[in-house]
Amino acid sequence: MNLDAAMQAAIEQAEQVKGRTYPNPPVGAVILDRDGQIAGVGATSPAGGPHAEVLALRRAGTRAAGGTAVVTLEPCNHTGRTPPCVDALLAAGVAAVVFAVSDPNPLAAGGAARLAEAGVEVQAGVLAGAVAGGPLREWLHKLRTGTPHVTWKFATSVDGRSAAADGTSQWITSEAARADVHRRRAAAEAIIVGTGTVFVDDPVLTARLPDGALAEKQPLRVVVGEREISPDARVLNDDSRTMVIRTRDPHEVLRALSDRTDVLVEGGPTLAGAFLRAGVIDRILAYVAPILLGGPITAVDDVGVLSIAQAQRWQFDGVQAVGPDVLLSLVPA
Amino acid sequence: MNLDAAMQAAIEQAEQVKGRTYPNPPVGAVILDRDGQIAGVGATSPAGGPHAEVLALRRAGTRAAGGTAVVTLEPCNHTGRTPPCVDALLAAGVAAVVFAVSDPNPLAAGGAARLAEAGVEVQAGVLAGAVAGGPLREWLHKLRTGTPHVTWKFATSVDGRSAAADGTSQWITSEAARADVHRRRAAAEAIIVGTGTVFVDDPVLTARLPDGALAEKQPLRVVVGEREISPDARVLNDDSRTMVIRTRDPHEVLRALSDRTDVLVEGGPTLAGAFLRAGVIDRILAYVAPILLGGPITAVDDVGVLSIAQAQRWQFDGVQAVGPDVLLSLVPA
Repeated sequence: MNLDAAMQAAIEQAEQVKGRTYPNPPVGAVILDRDGQIAGVGATSPAGGPHAEVLALRRAGTRAAGGTAVVTLEPCNHTGRTPPCVDALLAAGVAAVVFAVSDPNPLAAGGAARLAEAGVEVQAGVLAGAVAGGPLREWLHKLRTGTPHVTWKFATSVDGRSAAADGTSQWITSEAARADVHRRRAAAEAIIVGTGTVFVDDPVLTARLPDGALAEKQPLRVVVGEREISPDARVLNDDSRTMVIRTRDPHEVLRALSDRTDVLVEGGPTLAGAFLRAGVIDRILAYVAPILLGGPITAVDDVGVLSIAQAQRWQFDGVQAVGPDVLLSLVPA
Repeated sequence: MNLDAAMQAAIEQAEQVKGRTYPNPPVGAVILDRDGQIAGVGATSPAGGPHAEVLALRRAGTRAAGGTAVVTLEPCNHTGRTPPCVDALLAAGVAAVVFAVSDPNPLAAGGAARLAEAGVEVQAGVLAGAVAGGPLREWLHKLRTGTPHVTWKFATSVDGRSAAADGTSQWITSEAARADVHRRRAAAEAIIVGTGTVFVDDPVLTARLPDGALAEKQPLRVVVGEREISPDARVLNDDSRTMVIRTRDPHEVLRALSDRTDVLVEGGPTLAGAFLRAGVIDRILAYVAPILLGGPITAVDDVGVLSIAQAQRWQFDGVQAVGPDVLLSLVPA
C-alpha cells in the first residue's frame, strides 16, 4: 500500500471519532508492516484513553517492528493523561513515521525531531491539505483562534429557497442528505438555532441514526434570541442538554460556547444572516435538492451586501453527491 | 484502445460540431485499425457535406480494412444529400461497427441490420446514455417531440440570487463560466431573453471567443414580451439576426421557433418563471458562484409552486467545476 492510500485510511479512522475527542485532536493512525501491508489501525480515544498511534501499535503487535507508522498528526512528545506517543513508536521499533500535519501545539510538538534523532526516518506533509481541511479542521481552527469553528448548514432548492411559498419545507432534501446531517450533528459539539426556528418548526435537534434511534453522542442544543420559547418546545426535552442564550449577537453566542471546538448553525434566514454579517462562519454546507420552489422564502435574507462589489466571497472546497442531492462545501476565500 | 475510450473520443468529436449540423445530428466517429489504434476520426459536416463515418474513413485510408468503426449514432442506410454511410463502411472493409444510439429516424434506420447481413460484427449501446444525454440530446428530443429542446441557463450565487440588492450583477460568475456560456451560445440555434432583460442589461447576446471576437456561428437572438424595445437596443445590432416576438406565452414562442432544435433561455426571473410554469424547459444549467448576496433579487420568482408537495422535481445529471464556480445540470425527474 502506498503512503497516500495509507494516509487516506488514517483519515477515515480520524473521521470516525470526530467530535468525541475534544479537547484532544481526532487523529487516525495506520501501521504498515515491513512489506507495506496494514498491520493495525487506530483513532484517538475519548480524553484520557490511548491516542491513535498507541491503539494502532497494539493492534499491529510485533508486526510494527521495522514497519511504518502513518499518522494524520505529528506524534506527540508530551506527557498529558497518557505518555508520549513518540515513546510508544520507538519502543515498537518502527523504521519510519509519516504524518500529514505538524503539531502546532507547543506543549505537544517536537515529536518529529525526537523520532529523527532516534534514527527513525520521518516524512511530514503527506496529504496535509486533506487532513487540515478535513478531520483536523475544527481542532486547528480552535487552536489558532481560540474560538470554536462554526459551520452553517442549510438545505435549499436549486433556486435558493428553504421552503415553499406557504412555508412548508418537509422535506426539501432527501433521506440520504438528512442522514448526512445527523452524522454531522453527532460529530458537532453544539447546534445553534434561533427562537424563530423553534417557533416555526419546533425541532428536537438531536442526532439520530438511520433507524431513528438517538446517536450515542448528542450535541448541546443552543437556542439564540430575545423571545421567550415555550417550556413545551421539543428542543427542551430530555434527549440532550439545551442552552438558551438571550441575545441576538453572534459574538456573544460564541463567547458562551468558547470551550467548544465544533459548532453547527442550523438556524433560519434571520440567524444565518446575523452570523454571516458578523463574519463568524468558517464553513458553509449547502445541501442542494434538484427541485424548484420559487416564492418568497429564501435560505438567507440579508448578508450585509448591497452591491455586487461587496459580495461575500467564498470558495468551493468540496462538491459531492448525497443521494439525489448535491452537497456544496465552501470555506472563506 | 478499448471501445469505451474510443466512444469517448467519438463523443468529443461530436461535441465539437454541435449546433452546426442541424437538421442532421451531430455525430462523431473513430476508426480503429486491426491493432486497436486510432486510424482516423471525423464528425458530421454542415448539411450537405460528408457524414462523420465518411470523414473518419477517409482519414484512416487503407488502415480501416479489418478495423472497427466506433460511431455515436447507428450508421445511416439512407441516400439523402450524401450516399449511405453503410456503403462507405462496407467499401472500406471494416470488420466491426460499434455504435451508441440506434437511429430513431425511420428514413435513415436499418444500417445495423444491413451491416450484420453483410457479415460485419455489429455492437449497439456502447455509452448509449452518455451520447443520448450528451451530443445527441437536443436532436433526439426534436425528433421525438417535434419541438425544440429548451435549456434554461442562469448564473446564481450560492444563496440563489441573480443580482445584488441594488441590481448590480456584473459579474456573479467567473470568466471561466462566462466562456463556457459563450461556447454553449455558439452551439445553440437561438437565445431567448425577455424585454425586461433588454431594458435592464441591454445585452448584445452574441457568442464570443475568449479573445472577445465573434464566434464563427451566431445563434438567432429572440426577444420575447409585449413591451416595445428601443431601436437602439444592442440586441438589434448587426452581429447576428434578431427576432422580436410580441407575446408572453412560451408555447407561442416555441411555435415560432419550431424549425430549431437547440434553444437557450437566458431571460430574467419573469421569463424563466413563465417557461418553467409552462413546463417547456428540458434542461437547467445553473452556474453557481461561491458568493453570498442576500437581498430581494432571485434568479427566478414564481414557478407555480405553492406548497412543498407541488415542488418542481428534477434530477442532477451532471455536476462539474468551471473555474472557481460549479455548474449544476438538471433534467426532468
